[in-house]
Amino acid sequence: MSMRRSLILLSILAAAACSPQTEKPSSADDGQREIRSLLGGWSKAFRNKDVDGVMAIYAPGQELVAYDIVPPLEYRGVDAYRRDYAAFFEEFNGPLDVEIRDLHIVGSSDVAFSYGLERMAGTLRDGAPFETWVRFTQGYRRIGGHWYAVHDHISVPAEPQTGKARFDLKP
Amino acid sequence: MSMRRSLILLSILAAAACSPQTEKPSSADDGQREIRSLLGGWSKAFRNKDVDGVMAIYAPGQELVAYDIVPPLEYRGVDAYRRDYAAFFEEFNGPLDVEIRDLHIVGSSDVAFSYGLERMAGTLRDGAPFETWVRFTQGYRRIGGHWYAVHDHISVPAEPQTGKARFDLKP
Repeated sequence: MSMRRSLILLSILAAAACSPQTEKPSSADDGQREIRSLLGGWSKAFRNKDVDGVMAIYAPGQELVAYDIVPPLEYRGVDAYRRDYAAFFEEFNGPLDVEIRDLHIVGSSDVAFSYGLERMAGTLRDGAPFETWVRFTQGYRRIGGHWYAVHDHISVPAEPQTGKARFDLKP
Repeated sequence: MSMRRSLILLSILAAAACSPQTEKPSSADDGQREIRSLLGGWSKAFRNKDVDGVMAIYAPGQELVAYDIVPPLEYRGVDAYRRDYAAFFEEFNGPLDVEIRDLHIVGSSDVAFSYGLERMAGTLRDGAPFETWVRFTQGYRRIGGHWYAVHDHISVPAEPQTGKARFDLKP
Protein backbone atom coordinates (compact mmCIF):
# COMPACT_ATOMS: atom_id res chain seq x y z
CA MET A 1 0.00 0.00 0.00
CA SER A 2 1.42 3.42 -0.92
CA MET A 3 1.78 6.12 1.75
CA ARG A 4 -0.81 8.22 -0.12
CA ARG A 5 -3.37 5.40 -0.24
CA SER A 6 -2.77 4.52 3.42
CA LEU A 7 -3.33 8.18 4.38
CA ILE A 8 -6.65 8.28 2.50
CA LEU A 9 -7.78 4.99 4.03
CA LEU A 10 -6.83 6.12 7.54
CA SER A 11 -8.66 9.42 7.05
CA ILE A 12 -11.82 7.48 6.18
CA LEU A 13 -11.38 5.18 9.19
CA ALA A 14 -10.76 8.17 11.46
CA ALA A 15 -13.92 9.89 10.19
CA ALA A 16 -15.91 6.70 10.84
CA ALA A 17 -14.45 6.46 14.37
CA CYS A 18 -15.67 10.00 15.05
CA SER A 19 -19.32 8.97 14.35
CA PRO A 20 -19.89 6.01 16.67
CA GLN A 21 -23.71 6.27 16.65
CA THR A 22 -25.51 3.28 15.18
CA GLU A 23 -28.73 5.28 14.72
CA LYS A 24 -29.04 8.39 12.57
CA PRO A 25 -27.21 11.15 14.44
CA SER A 26 -29.17 14.23 15.42
CA SER A 27 -27.95 17.79 15.79
CA ALA A 28 -29.32 20.36 18.24
CA ASP A 29 -30.98 22.08 15.23
CA ASP A 30 -32.66 18.82 14.20
CA GLY A 31 -33.86 18.47 17.80
CA GLN A 32 -35.34 21.99 17.80
CA ARG A 33 -37.19 21.30 14.57
CA GLU A 34 -38.42 17.88 15.67
CA ILE A 35 -39.67 19.19 19.03
CA ARG A 36 -41.43 22.10 17.33
CA SER A 37 -43.09 19.53 15.08
CA LEU A 38 -44.06 17.36 18.09
CA LEU A 39 -45.69 20.39 19.74
CA GLY A 40 -47.53 21.19 16.49
CA GLY A 41 -48.95 17.66 16.42
CA TRP A 42 -49.87 17.86 20.09
CA SER A 43 -51.69 21.21 19.56
CA LYS A 44 -53.72 19.82 16.65
CA ALA A 45 -54.70 16.73 18.68
CA PHE A 46 -55.53 18.88 21.72
CA ARG A 47 -57.90 21.05 19.66
CA ASN A 48 -59.68 17.88 18.46
CA LYS A 49 -59.73 16.33 21.97
CA ASP A 50 -57.90 13.37 20.40
CA VAL A 51 -56.46 11.46 23.38
CA ASP A 52 -54.33 9.10 21.23
CA GLY A 53 -52.95 12.10 19.35
CA VAL A 54 -51.92 14.07 22.45
CA MET A 55 -50.43 10.97 24.08
CA ALA A 56 -48.21 10.27 21.03
CA ILE A 57 -45.76 12.91 22.32
CA TYR A 58 -45.08 11.05 25.60
CA ALA A 59 -42.61 8.26 26.38
CA PRO A 60 -44.39 4.92 26.77
CA GLY A 61 -44.43 2.98 30.03
CA GLN A 62 -43.59 4.29 33.49
CA GLU A 63 -40.87 6.86 32.67
CA LEU A 64 -43.22 9.84 32.37
CA VAL A 65 -43.68 12.03 35.45
CA ALA A 66 -46.26 14.78 34.94
CA TYR A 67 -47.20 17.70 37.18
CA ASP A 68 -50.58 18.88 35.89
CA ILE A 69 -52.60 22.02 36.65
CA VAL A 70 -54.97 19.89 38.73
CA PRO A 71 -54.28 17.51 41.68
CA PRO A 72 -52.68 15.16 42.57
CA LEU A 73 -49.10 16.47 42.97
CA GLU A 74 -47.87 14.10 40.26
CA TYR A 75 -48.98 11.59 37.62
CA ARG A 76 -46.63 8.65 37.09
CA GLY A 77 -46.64 6.72 33.83
CA VAL A 78 -48.40 7.30 30.56
CA ASP A 79 -51.61 5.42 31.53
CA ALA A 80 -52.31 7.66 34.53
CA TYR A 81 -51.68 10.79 32.45
CA ARG A 82 -53.92 9.50 29.63
CA ARG A 83 -56.82 9.20 32.11
CA ASP A 84 -56.12 12.78 33.26
CA TYR A 85 -56.28 14.09 29.65
CA ALA A 86 -59.43 12.08 28.91
CA ALA A 87 -61.16 13.46 32.03
CA PHE A 88 -60.17 17.01 31.02
CA PHE A 89 -61.53 16.62 27.46
CA GLU A 90 -64.78 15.17 28.89
CA GLU A 91 -65.49 18.50 30.59
CA PHE A 92 -65.93 20.31 27.25
CA ASN A 93 -68.50 20.52 24.45
CA GLY A 94 -67.00 20.68 20.96
CA PRO A 95 -63.40 21.43 20.06
CA LEU A 96 -60.85 23.30 22.20
CA ASP A 97 -58.59 26.16 21.30
CA VAL A 98 -54.93 26.30 22.28
CA GLU A 99 -52.26 28.93 21.62
CA ILE A 100 -48.58 28.73 22.60
CA ARG A 101 -46.74 32.01 23.23
CA ASP A 102 -43.07 32.77 24.01
CA LEU A 103 -42.02 29.22 23.16
CA HIS A 104 -38.41 28.42 24.05
CA ILE A 105 -36.72 25.15 23.07
CA VAL A 106 -33.32 24.37 24.61
CA GLY A 107 -31.85 21.25 23.08
CA SER A 108 -28.81 19.11 22.51
CA SER A 109 -28.57 16.00 20.34
CA ASP A 110 -30.47 13.78 22.80
CA VAL A 111 -31.86 15.86 25.71
CA ALA A 112 -34.08 18.94 25.42
CA PHE A 113 -36.66 20.98 27.25
CA SER A 114 -39.24 23.52 26.17
CA TYR A 115 -41.29 26.12 28.01
CA GLY A 116 -43.77 28.84 27.30
CA LEU A 117 -47.20 30.24 28.01
CA GLU A 118 -50.31 28.52 26.77
CA ARG A 119 -53.86 29.79 26.35
CA MET A 120 -56.52 27.10 26.55
CA ALA A 121 -60.14 27.91 25.73
CA GLY A 122 -63.38 26.04 25.16
CA THR A 123 -67.02 25.67 26.16
CA LEU A 124 -67.78 23.65 29.30
CA ARG A 125 -70.53 20.99 29.32
CA ASP A 126 -72.90 23.47 31.03
CA GLY A 127 -72.35 25.99 28.23
CA ALA A 128 -70.09 28.33 30.22
CA PRO A 129 -67.02 29.66 28.40
CA PHE A 130 -63.61 28.65 29.77
CA GLU A 131 -60.36 30.45 29.02
CA THR A 132 -57.13 30.47 30.95
CA TRP A 133 -53.39 31.10 30.51
CA VAL A 134 -51.06 28.53 32.00
CA ARG A 135 -47.28 28.09 32.15
CA PHE A 136 -45.86 24.88 30.68
CA THR A 137 -42.48 23.15 30.78
CA GLN A 138 -41.78 19.90 28.96
CA GLY A 139 -38.64 17.71 29.14
CA TYR A 140 -37.58 15.36 26.33
CA ARG A 141 -35.24 12.46 25.70
CA ARG A 142 -34.28 11.05 22.29
CA ILE A 143 -35.02 7.33 22.59
CA GLY A 144 -34.30 4.97 19.67
CA GLY A 145 -34.05 7.88 17.24
CA HIS A 146 -37.34 9.50 18.32
CA TRP A 147 -37.98 12.40 20.69
CA TYR A 148 -40.40 11.74 23.53
CA ALA A 149 -41.62 13.95 26.37
CA VAL A 150 -40.64 12.26 29.64
CA HIS A 151 -41.74 15.14 31.88
CA ASP A 152 -44.57 17.67 31.88
CA HIS A 153 -45.20 20.58 34.22
CA ILE A 154 -48.30 22.77 33.74
CA SER A 155 -49.57 25.29 36.26
CA VAL A 156 -51.17 28.59 37.15
CA PRO A 157 -49.71 30.85 39.87
CA ALA A 158 -51.24 30.73 43.36
CA GLU A 159 -51.50 33.06 46.37
CA PRO A 160 -50.37 31.55 49.68
CA GLN A 161 -52.13 34.33 51.67
CA THR A 162 -55.60 33.73 50.17
CA GLY A 163 -55.19 30.14 48.97
CA LYS A 164 -56.47 31.34 45.59
CA ALA A 165 -55.32 29.91 42.25
CA ARG A 166 -54.93 32.59 39.57
CA PHE A 167 -56.72 31.26 36.48
CA ASP A 168 -57.38 34.88 35.45
CA LEU A 169 -53.84 36.12 34.63
CA LYS A 170 -52.89 37.21 31.11
CA PRO A 171 -49.43 37.74 29.63
CA MET B 1 8.48 8.21 7.67
CA SER B 2 7.85 4.49 8.16
CA MET B 3 4.37 3.06 7.71
CA ARG B 4 4.31 2.18 11.42
CA ARG B 5 5.23 5.71 12.53
CA SER B 6 2.72 7.27 10.13
CA LEU B 7 -0.01 4.98 11.54
CA ILE B 8 0.82 6.06 15.11
CA LEU B 9 0.90 9.75 14.14
CA LEU B 10 -2.41 9.49 12.28
CA SER B 11 -4.04 7.71 15.23
CA ILE B 12 -3.01 10.61 17.47
CA LEU B 13 -4.30 13.16 14.94
CA ALA B 14 -7.58 11.23 14.56
CA ALA B 15 -8.05 11.11 18.34
CA ALA B 16 -7.45 14.88 18.50
CA ALA B 17 -9.96 15.43 15.68
CA CYS B 18 -12.57 13.46 17.66
CA SER B 19 -12.33 15.96 20.58
CA PRO B 20 -12.97 19.34 18.94
CA GLN B 21 -14.05 21.09 22.19
CA THR B 22 -11.81 23.94 23.25
CA GLU B 23 -13.15 23.85 26.83
CA LYS B 24 -12.96 20.80 29.10
CA PRO B 25 -15.44 18.27 27.71
CA SER B 26 -18.26 17.10 29.97
CA SER B 27 -20.05 13.78 29.96
CA ALA B 28 -23.70 13.19 30.89
CA ASP B 29 -22.44 11.65 34.15
CA ASP B 30 -20.38 14.76 34.93
CA GLY B 31 -23.50 16.83 34.23
CA GLN B 32 -25.61 14.73 36.62
CA ARG B 33 -23.01 15.12 39.37
CA GLU B 34 -22.54 18.85 38.77
CA ILE B 35 -26.29 19.54 38.77
CA ARG B 36 -26.74 17.51 41.96
CA SER B 37 -23.99 19.65 43.50
CA LEU B 38 -25.69 22.87 42.24
CA LEU B 39 -28.95 21.78 43.90
CA GLY B 40 -27.08 20.97 47.12
CA GLY B 41 -25.63 24.50 47.16
CA TRP B 42 -29.01 26.00 46.38
CA SER B 43 -30.68 24.05 49.25
CA LYS B 44 -28.06 25.19 51.74
CA ALA B 45 -28.46 28.83 50.65
CA PHE B 46 -32.26 28.53 50.72
CA ARG B 47 -32.19 27.27 54.34
CA ASN B 48 -30.06 30.30 55.29
CA LYS B 49 -32.24 32.73 53.28
CA ASP B 50 -29.02 33.68 51.47
CA VAL B 51 -30.18 35.50 48.31
CA ASP B 52 -26.72 35.62 46.70
CA GLY B 53 -26.31 31.90 47.36
CA VAL B 54 -29.60 30.85 45.80
CA MET B 55 -29.05 33.14 42.81
CA ALA B 56 -25.63 31.57 42.07
CA ILE B 57 -27.41 28.68 40.34
CA TYR B 58 -29.06 30.94 37.71
CA ALA B 59 -27.72 32.21 34.38
CA PRO B 60 -26.81 35.90 34.56
CA GLY B 61 -28.59 38.57 32.51
CA GLN B 62 -31.91 38.24 30.74
CA GLU B 63 -31.85 34.56 29.67
CA LEU B 64 -33.63 33.24 32.77
CA VAL B 65 -37.40 32.72 32.51
CA ALA B 66 -38.97 31.62 35.80
CA TYR B 67 -42.52 30.49 36.56
CA ASP B 68 -42.84 30.79 40.34
CA ILE B 69 -45.54 29.53 42.74
CA VAL B 70 -46.79 33.10 43.08
CA PRO B 71 -47.91 35.64 40.43
CA PRO B 72 -47.10 37.02 37.91
CA LEU B 73 -47.20 34.34 35.18
CA GLU B 74 -43.46 34.74 34.58
CA TYR B 75 -40.29 36.42 35.83
CA ARG B 76 -37.82 37.45 33.14
CA GLY B 77 -34.16 37.91 33.93
CA VAL B 78 -32.14 37.24 37.03
CA ASP B 79 -32.81 40.64 38.66
CA ALA B 80 -36.59 40.19 38.66
CA TYR B 81 -36.23 36.69 40.08
CA ARG B 82 -33.81 37.89 42.78
CA ARG B 83 -36.42 40.39 44.00
CA ASP B 84 -38.98 37.55 44.09
CA TYR B 85 -36.67 35.38 46.25
CA ALA B 86 -35.84 38.32 48.54
CA ALA B 87 -39.55 39.10 49.06
CA PHE B 88 -40.23 35.42 49.87
CA PHE B 89 -37.39 35.23 52.42
CA GLU B 90 -38.65 38.47 54.03
CA GLU B 91 -41.89 36.72 54.99
CA PHE B 92 -40.12 34.39 57.44
CA ASN B 93 -38.52 34.56 60.87
CA GLY B 94 -35.32 32.53 61.21
CA PRO B 95 -34.06 29.84 58.85
CA LEU B 96 -36.15 27.79 56.42
CA ASP B 97 -36.26 24.06 55.88
CA VAL B 98 -36.25 22.47 52.45
CA GLU B 99 -36.34 18.81 51.39
CA ILE B 100 -36.16 17.48 47.81
CA ARG B 101 -37.87 14.13 47.10
CA ASP B 102 -38.02 11.98 43.95
CA LEU B 103 -35.30 14.02 42.26
CA HIS B 104 -34.76 13.18 38.58
CA ILE B 105 -31.90 14.63 36.51
CA VAL B 106 -31.96 14.08 32.75
CA GLY B 107 -28.80 15.36 31.15
CA SER B 108 -26.51 15.37 28.14
CA SER B 109 -23.11 17.02 27.85
CA ASP B 110 -24.53 20.57 27.61
CA VAL B 111 -28.31 20.56 28.22
CA ALA B 112 -30.13 19.09 31.21
CA PHE B 113 -33.30 19.35 33.24
CA SER B 114 -34.29 18.20 36.71
CA TYR B 115 -37.60 17.76 38.47
CA GLY B 116 -38.96 16.55 41.75
CA LEU B 117 -41.09 17.37 44.78
CA GLU B 118 -39.95 19.89 47.35
CA ARG B 119 -41.10 20.49 50.91
CA MET B 120 -40.60 24.03 52.14
CA ALA B 121 -41.20 24.91 55.80
CA GLY B 122 -40.60 27.83 58.13
CA THR B 123 -42.13 30.25 60.61
CA LEU B 124 -43.93 33.27 59.18
CA ARG B 125 -43.31 36.80 60.56
CA ASP B 126 -46.55 36.55 62.61
CA GLY B 127 -45.30 33.32 64.23
CA ALA B 128 -47.57 30.98 62.25
CA PRO B 129 -45.97 27.79 60.93
CA PHE B 130 -45.77 27.38 57.15
CA GLU B 131 -45.25 24.07 55.38
CA THR B 132 -46.08 23.10 51.81
CA TRP B 133 -45.11 20.59 49.15
CA VAL B 134 -44.49 21.99 45.67
CA ARG B 135 -43.48 20.52 42.31
CA PHE B 136 -40.33 21.92 40.70
CA THR B 137 -38.73 21.64 37.27
CA GLN B 138 -35.43 23.31 36.39
CA GLY B 139 -33.75 23.57 32.97
CA TYR B 140 -29.97 24.00 32.55
CA ARG B 141 -27.44 24.97 29.92
CA ARG B 142 -23.68 24.48 30.14
CA ILE B 143 -22.26 27.93 29.41
CA GLY B 144 -18.49 28.49 29.28
CA GLY B 145 -17.84 25.22 31.10
CA HIS B 146 -20.33 25.91 33.92
CA TRP B 147 -23.89 24.70 34.37
CA TYR B 148 -26.53 27.38 34.93
CA ALA B 149 -30.28 27.15 35.43
CA VAL B 150 -31.94 29.11 32.61
CA HIS B 151 -35.48 28.08 33.50
CA ASP B 152 -37.44 27.44 36.71
CA HIS B 153 -40.98 26.21 37.17
CA ILE B 154 -42.44 25.83 40.69
CA SER B 155 -46.10 25.27 41.47
CA VAL B 156 -48.86 23.70 43.51
CA PRO B 157 -51.89 22.07 41.85
CA ALA B 158 -55.11 24.09 41.54
CA GLU B 159 -58.83 23.34 41.20
CA PRO B 160 -60.57 25.08 38.28
CA GLN B 161 -64.03 24.39 39.81
CA THR B 162 -63.34 26.07 43.16
CA GLY B 163 -60.45 28.36 42.17
CA LYS B 164 -58.54 26.91 45.12
CA ALA B 165 -54.77 26.37 45.15
CA ARG B 166 -53.78 23.14 46.91
CA PHE B 167 -50.97 24.07 49.31
CA ASP B 168 -52.07 21.15 51.54
CA LEU B 169 -51.14 18.14 49.36
CA LYS B 170 -48.50 15.64 50.48
CA PRO B 171 -46.68 13.00 48.41
